[in-house]
Amino acid sequence: MTTARPRILTGDRPTGKMHLGHYVGTLKNRVRLQDEYECFFFVADLHTLTTRLERDKLGETTQNIRDVVLDNLSVGIDPQRSHYILQSLVPQISELTVIFSNLVTVPRLQRVPNLKDVMRDLEIEQPSMGLLSYPVLQAADILHVRANLVPVGKDQESHIEVTREIARRFNNLYADEDNPVLPEPEALIGDVPTLVGLDGQAKASKSLGNAIFLADDPKTVEEKVRGMYTDPNRIRADIPGRVEGNPVFIYHDAFNDDVAEVNDLKERYQHGKVGDVEVKRKLAAAINRFLEPIRTRRAELATQPRLVEDVLAAGSERARTEAAETLYRIRHAMGLTWGIT
Amino acid sequence: MTTARPRILTGDRPTGKMHLGHYVGTLKNRVRLQDEYECFFFVADLHTLTTRLERDKLGETTQNIRDVVLDNLSVGIDPQRSHYILQSLVPQISELTVIFSNLVTVPRLQRVPNLKDVMRDLEIEQPSMGLLSYPVLQAADILHVRANLVPVGKDQESHIEVTREIARRFNNLYADEDNPVLPEPEALIGDVPTLVGLDGQAKASKSLGNAIFLADDPKTVEEKVRGMYTDPNRIRADIPGRVEGNPVFIYHDAFNDDVAEVNDLKERYQHGKVGDVEVKRKLAAAINRFLEPIRTRRAELATQPRLVEDVLAAGSERARTEAAETLYRIRHAMGLTWGIT
Repeated sequence: MTTARPRILTGDRPTGKMHLGHYVGTLKNRVRLQDEYECFFFVADLHTLTTRLERDKLGETTQNIRDVVLDNLSVGIDPQRSHYILQSLVPQISELTVIFSNLVTVPRLQRVPNLKDVMRDLEIEQPSMGLLSYPVLQAADILHVRANLVPVGKDQESHIEVTREIARRFNNLYADEDNPVLPEPEALIGDVPTLVGLDGQAKASKSLGNAIFLADDPKTVEEKVRGMYTDPNRIRADIPGRVEGNPVFIYHDAFNDDVAEVNDLKERYQHGKVGDVEVKRKLAAAINRFLEPIRTRRAELATQPRLVEDVLAAGSERARTEAAETLYRIRHAMGLTWGIT
Repeated sequence: MTTARPRILTGDRPTGKMHLGHYVGTLKNRVRLQDEYECFFFVADLHTLTTRLERDKLGETTQNIRDVVLDNLSVGIDPQRSHYILQSLVPQISELTVIFSNLVTVPRLQRVPNLKDVMRDLEIEQPSMGLLSYPVLQAADILHVRANLVPVGKDQESHIEVTREIARRFNNLYADEDNPVLPEPEALIGDVPTLVGLDGQAKASKSLGNAIFLADDPKTVEEKVRGMYTDPNRIRADIPGRVEGNPVFIYHDAFNDDVAEVNDLKERYQHGKVGDVEVKRKLAAAINRFLEPIRTRRAELATQPRLVEDVLAAGSERARTEAAETLYRIRHAMGLTWGIT
């Protein structure tokens, strides 16, 4: 608890297995951050309620939590160095949410751009209170361990701004200027590329069914790569093709460790001297080389009974200790000290 | 826990000492309810945040909690028979609030009449999320012990309706029709009179400074009664006066146990045969007779060190046990069972 490293919190909603898009967009970065920072990783199961309430979907949550954690561990998140938290196992996050909800106005949250996006995408006419107050719950997620940095995509920046405003408002009301109770966490907006979908759509996503999962076996990878979208104008192998923006070559660039092979394929592709079959066969092989150590590690992890349970239990226990300290400081600063002195 | 008595939950915000208006409006009724029902009484300290955030006001909360509980105990609330809960000592209430917030829409809460009243009265232009979601927190208050009945004033009925809707929505989504998880609690709207203020204003209230507190000493009562508003047209004792709607006689009717004396005073007042001084002297004496056993009990209670602490600790412990059971049932019904099986 007396570490000097800045704290990071970031996490995932447990909506299913993670795929190569997640790897490129966030997982790769997370693994690196573990050296420099004290990292709290986070499964946001309560957040799923803002957009999925159906009993059958919620029934998948247990499996989804397991998959998300195994995916993170299999790419290199190390529970010995970092903490892995399950949101619903930390009651103080809800307690902070109730307190923080008094520090932000309704019109302020109605202006958060993400709210409009989600309502449009999911065709929600009347938002639930949970959906509107999503950024308040997120503020509690971040501040319960007093995180300093939050690695997010550009589209989440406006949420972190709400967290900063809540922290600032709290400090203005209840803390000395030179001794703030809450940190104003900063968004760590990396150079986070979005991985194109297998079908050429802008984004690989589980719901669009256009993604290769980290847990996919070699055969599945081969099949998915075989069906990938490429340059639609290239109807024969001897027609010169476009490399830029071509999903097959974007994936080659991202996952093929044999740079000479990639350059050779690009060269021949642009001159109509290679067939799609070869390009895709070599891509499938490259992705399988890339995924092999991840699969091996995942298989090892899966043999350890109760591993995910133990990791989340330990991380959430640590989070509760931190959160109890945060809540203690908050209540003392506010003057709401009954029963906690 | 296997009592067959229906459960009641009702409570107060810890905003200061309670007065005769509270006695007439709710305390008197509470004392009676203890025989027939399993009663959970409640100090809603988190609710105060919806309308008071200033550090100096929140700093009074500890004293206010003590006063509110002592006032309740001194009129006859019996912590041996009933449970006395402090809201902030039951984290599950916040956890339920976060879950329930997904079961009610923003427009639904914007239509709650009380919201508009509070915003108008307190000149709030932009409501906080906490103020808008007040009825959701209240639903968690009520449902955390699965209360069946909620004694409220007519003006609070619309809040209880939100609780009923949340319980119904939850049961529709996650429970069998013949085996609901949550009760749909009913408002117990008694014949609750509003006590007129000492100054003739519609309502005795602490903020208007027109109330006699249960803890006022005899001298203070005499002074306050001496300053009471009466029939303004009666500028001399020999002018006939109005009894109906006259605060002095409303208080005589409510608190003077000597009915013959009250009738005699009314008769003489209407014929201009009694001075205000006598009417008020007898009223002060009557109120002091009424308050004497309450004061005595309060003095006894105040000699018991840590009494209020112990009462709230025991009641809140009981509430946490009930609330953990409620949350367990809720999470099982929803399928969010990680870490709780």
